Amino acid sequence: MESLTGRGFASDNNSGVLPEILDAITGANINHTPAYGEDPWTKKAELAFRKYFGDDIEVHFVFNGTAANVLGLSTCARSFEAILCTDLAHIYEDECGAPESFTGCKLISVENKIGKLTPENMVKRISGVGNQHHVQPKVISISQSTEVGTVYKKSELEELSKVAKAHDLYFHMDGARISNAAVALGLPFREFTRDVGVDVLSFGGTKCGLLGAEAVVFFNPELAKNFLYRRKQGMQLASKMRFIAAQFEAFLNQELWLKHASHANEMARYLESKVSEISEIQIGYPVDANGVFAWVPREIISPLQKKFPFYVWKSGDDKDLVRWMMSYDTQRVDIDLFTASLKEQLA
Amino acid sequence: MESLTGRGFASDNNSGVLPEILDAITGANINHTPAYGEDPWTKKAELAFRKYFGDDIEVHFVFNGTAANVLGLSTCARSFEAILCTDLAHIYEDECGAPESFTGCKLISVENKIGKLTPENMVKRISGVGNQHHVQPKVISISQSTEVGTVYKKSELEELSKVAKAHDLYFHMDGARISNAAVALGLPFREFTRDVGVDVLSFGGTKCGLLGAEAVVFFNPELAKNFLYRRKQGMQLASKMRFIAAQFEAFLNQELWLKHASHANEMARYLESKVSEISEIQIGYPVDANGVFAWVPREIISPLQKKFPFYVWKSGDDKDLVRWMMSYDTQRVDIDLFTASLKEQLA
Amino acid sequence: MESLTGRGFASDNNSGVLPEILDAITGANINHTPAYGEDPWTKKAELAFRKYFGDDIEVHFVFNGTAANVLGLSTCARSFEAILCTDLAHIYEDECGAPESFTGCKLISVENKIGKLTPENMVKRISGVGNQHHVQPKVISISQSTEVGTVYKKSELEELSKVAKAHDLYFHMDGARISNAAVALGLPFREFTRDVGVDVLSFGGTKCGLLGAEAVVFFNPELAKNFLYRRKQGMQLASKMRFIAAQFEAFLNQELWLKHASHANEMARYLESKVSEISEIQIGYPVDANGVFAWVPREIISPLQKKFPFYVWKSGDDKDLVRWMMSYDTQRVDIDLFTASLKEQLA
Amino acid sequence: MESLTGRGFASDNNSGVLPEILDAITGANINHTPAYGEDPWTKKAELAFRKYFGDDIEVHFVFNGTAANVLGLSTCARSFEAILCTDLAHIYEDECGAPESFTGCKLISVENKIGKLTPENMVKRISGVGNQHHVQPKVISISQSTEVGTVYKKSELEELSKVAKAHDLYFHMDGARISNAAVALGLPFREFTRDVGVDVLSFGGTKCGLLGAEAVVFFNPELAKNFLYRRKQGMQLASKMRFIAAQFEAFLNQELWLKHASHANEMARYLESKVSEISEIQIGYPVDANGVFAWVPREIISPLQKKFPFYVWKSGDDKDLVRWMMSYDTQRVDIDLFTASLKEQLA
Repeated sequence: MESLTGRGFASDNNSGVLPEILDAITGANINHTPAYGEDPWTKKAELAFRKYFGDDIEVHFVFNGTAANVLGLSTCARSFEAILCTDLAHIYEDECGAPESFTGCKLISVENKIGKLTPENMVKRISGVGNQHHVQPKVISISQSTEVGTVYKKSELEELSKVAKAHDLYFHMDGARISNAAVALGLPFREFTRDVGVDVLSFGGTKCGLLGAEAVVFFNPELAKNFLYRRKQGMQLASKMRFIAAQFEAFLNQELWLKHASHANEMARYLESKVSEISEIQIGYPVDANGVFAWVPREIISPLQKKFPFYVWKSGDDKDLVRWMMSYDTQRVDIDLFTASLKEQLA
Repeated sequence: MESLTGRGFASDNNSGVLPEILDAITGANINHTPAYGEDPWTKKAELAFRKYFGDDIEVHFVFNGTAANVLGLSTCARSFEAILCTDLAHIYEDECGAPESFTGCKLISVENKIGKLTPENMVKRISGVGNQHHVQPKVISISQSTEVGTVYKKSELEELSKVAKAHDLYFHMDGARISNAAVALGLPFREFTRDVGVDVLSFGGTKCGLLGAEAVVFFNPELAKNFLYRRKQGMQLASKMRFIAAQFEAFLNQELWLKHASHANEMARYLESKVSEISEIQIGYPVDANGVFAWVPREIISPLQKKFPFYVWKSGDDKDLVRWMMSYDTQRVDIDLFTASLKEQLA
Repeated sequence: MESLTGRGFASDNNSGVLPEILDAITGANINHTPAYGEDPWTKKAELAFRKYFGDDIEVHFVFNGTAANVLGLSTCARSFEAILCTDLAHIYEDECGAPESFTGCKLISVENKIGKLTPENMVKRISGVGNQHHVQPKVISISQSTEVGTVYKKSELEELSKVAKAHDLYFHMDGARISNAAVALGLPFREFTRDVGVDVLSFGGTKCGLLGAEAVVFFNPELAKNFLYRRKQGMQLASKMRFIAAQFEAFLNQELWLKHASHANEMARYLESKVSEISEIQIGYPVDANGVFAWVPREIISPLQKKFPFYVWKSGDDKDLVRWMMSYDTQRVDIDLFTASLKEQLA
Repeated sequence: MESLTGRGFASDNNSGVLPEILDAITGANINHTPAYGEDPWTKKAELAFRKYFGDDIEVHFVFNGTAANVLGLSTCARSFEAILCTDLAHIYEDECGAPESFTGCKLISVENKIGKLTPENMVKRISGVGNQHHVQPKVISISQSTEVGTVYKKSELEELSKVAKAHDLYFHMDGARISNAAVALGLPFREFTRDVGVDVLSFGGTKCGLLGAEAVVFFNPELAKNFLYRRKQGMQLASKMRFIAAQFEAFLNQELWLKHASHANEMARYLESKVSEISEIQIGYPVDANGVFAWVPREIISPLQKKFPFYVWKSGDDKDLVRWMMSYDTQRVDIDLFTASLKEQLA
């Protein structure tokens, strides 16, 4: 089910691998090297992360975003503790219960505000502290950018962090689309992660053009202590680690993240500008990063999806909220064809 | 720590990726395609597995061997049931407790005989059946080829399977090196897996030259029923699945497994023949597949490892048992240089 | 912190043990008898349950209500499946995450209606069926009587059951206060449990005057199959089982449940009638069973609690919702003194 | 299946409840009191434990020995860590996998020496420290007295503790029969627990005449920190806690443990002396506490068991090793009748 151009708007996971990343993988394919992370590519990728985040961080690589989040969270909370996140957090809705099953923790959902966790809503859901009958809130987890394409401002993160620390909560960030957030904010990664008090970060690569590579970055050294054992027990230790590490080395050292996330975000703004001209369609959330959410008359959705794959996010009265994700390889022509088709359907 | 030739004998995980596999990955890098396994490459890889194992099997892909084994076993046993395996099984010794932690099951170790689980030893460890105080044996797990390079004969598998079924036990096979076993036996995969009564098979690719891809093959359809949920909850669902599937498609349809496992096994026999001439060294296990285990005078091990990486398996009195693993890219020259150096050390 | 009469309204767990139950325990204290449930008292208690629920049920005893619910639910759902319950269900709020931790399942909360799960609200929360990214709804769990003292009518249970079965969901009932519900409904236990389609029932004893004994009653024989192993692994197999069983034998065969739950319910209605006369106080939920919930001016709560222990349930604007639980030993004089004191505070 | 006298030798769990304990339970049955451990009886029982073990210990009560051990161990080890115990430890063999399932940890079995863990055998099983592929040894667990009725001497415990600490291992003691051990050693509890470096102790009551009550005693305050949440999540928080606490209060403050364990141990020595006269029977283990293990000609076992219940422990060539457990209520006449019958069978 591909679009006319071979590219649709269903997911940034549906696009392939950046050519620079395939080159990096090929480049790492020489000789024998120790397996399980004891290789020079892993060292170089770690150095690349340190350049961005500081010399004293710890970083480890895993296969996918589910694991980055769940393993990262497992270092923050024991089974009788609880994880707070928004009611539409990926970890809450879309991981088939992996966080609960692996950590044993309860996830407490907090009403979101344009996809964000707010200090006010979060505090309302903190209860039972010190009460043996009740799970003990121990960590907040937010997505940056969020599941609906919005991006927390630095000041919002600072405020959240302050309130979290005041309640003795760790701060976990799901950065599956962190490059898009960095571009949106125009800030170095460090400034809106480590510097605002994040303890553990899932640094995403796959959705920005890697073949399959995610990193768990620890700013809180205490939490990192036994991560190697957790990763192995969590079935996420790659034997041929060099091929995961080499992807990140190229991604960071060649600033691929910047180039490609900038493009994807720009495409989202372009699509937003095009559909904003159409009166039957309303933008659903601020278009901060690489996703465009819009309320679309229900009857045109199905015909449109046949030509350009995308997902319906939720149902309204006579309109549905749909999600259009931009990828590193989305082209203006894709958007032009799409909006032309959209207008045609509405005509 | 590489050998003179860039290739050592530490592990078949230390070698890189087959060129044909990199080609397959590159070939899959076109357009957008649905993520999470709904793509044509996954369909093609499934078909390839069906060609080998029968039309009615079910097969799913995961990132690594730990996951293939643990997720496969999780379909066979509930937390109050037990998994029987040899005392040197990979799942017993080298997975940082992943099987226990993910399944909740107890692993019961059985004394091995040249690396193999024997019906006699297995039956000795079945106890407490029907007793509420005792875990209930529910599945046997064997490695083919074994952790010490031996290969179960078809008749041995048939006997094991018969005894397992008589005790109402599922039959799980860890095939991390199944291609080497197939070559050793000179039998089609199906004849020594499905046809001897295996219920679930971990079909290994990574150790035979894939970048990172393992398959869980179900011959027992009942066990496969909810595997998609288990895989997702087990953090093993790849978003860009096409790049895992494409590896297997090439591996099976181009018979890469046959070519490369044959070579690795041949290299093991070559090394065996060379060291057999050296009186100070004794072969430790029958060299059936791609590993050579040998008792080597302790004092020469460390100097030798500096030039050619390999692992000590266990300590004896004045000799240690070492493991030399052959890979798809091991060359005769590697072995010639190595045995020359070995003789030099002994001189 | 006892009331003037030695009896308060904090919890039906705060009262002691029925004299008849102490007699039953003492009566079982003769000779040696096999441990772990192989004794005659356990057989007799099982027979007593069969008299009430039918010859083909299976029943097992555990120490407390947490375990009865969690172990019962563990037979209904695997870790990738989900449990639906109201947002104020005991299993959702007050078990320190025991259900999530022991079963691995996600609990999905459904908006309650006077404490009840309604088919409409339940259906709204069923989503992602067949979607590998989403936990799979598998069981509903309701409390009868509810946490706020209301009781499901038989017709409500039938409707719920029908909708649950239509969605292929098991039906679990937390009957921590099932005797109070039976009295409220004026129906035999069987008619509003097994006969309406309940699969597993937690039959509570402790809150109605037992020392500490709960039963898990299976109407669905498939679910009961491995319960003995689950109970043992769940750390709930009593060695001196006879002393738990003897409590239930007396409770059922002497109809203690009827006598004492009738009294407690009657006391609740008496308290309701007394406070209904007070204009500053509003009853919060229908008083169906042995709990009275009322909105009370905030300023009088603390002074009142000093004399008569009870809990605040939730906060409103200038009034708080408080809970007054009646026990088997609550006396009219307790209520008279309490309401007198209440009026005094309001004066 | 009772013996002629109503008392057999199958298990100290088969005997009933001490009259003093029933009195204590009855005595606690007055008025309402806060549930879940906030009552005066629990405070008094805690004080009693402090008198024996020191003012700065922490103690909590649970329902049974399985839970005391598993919950205690859960405070010592995370899921990637391992628990070392003997190959016949109760936690290894007889808990239906509860330790593995609840803690996620692997249990590593160590060859026992007359039922004991020795420093030499223990050290042999410590491996893979710092290796991410291997579970990390973190705690040793021993039973005092052991499963075969032997008792560790103080010097043996000191030596074990020293070696454990040298390997950074916590020291857990399963004291299901600790009173029998104390009597055997002639030492105050504290001298062979806290004072030799035990970190967490399961203090058993049920096997010495309590209705059902075990305590988890923490000498290491760090481990105790979150125990209340673990207990609740582990489904072991009693609502009517006073009736568990009252048992321990009486047991310790009235020195019931001393009186009754002394008697049981004495009965074991009496039985030992009687069977030692019989040439066909050999004592299997030193009779230190209240169990007598003996090799008995196989053909007389079954007829004997019909009159006096007891268990076969393991099979030998023509003799089986049987276990005869003495209880607080075992009488000389029971032993006289039994040995007479034994001799009769052998005649």
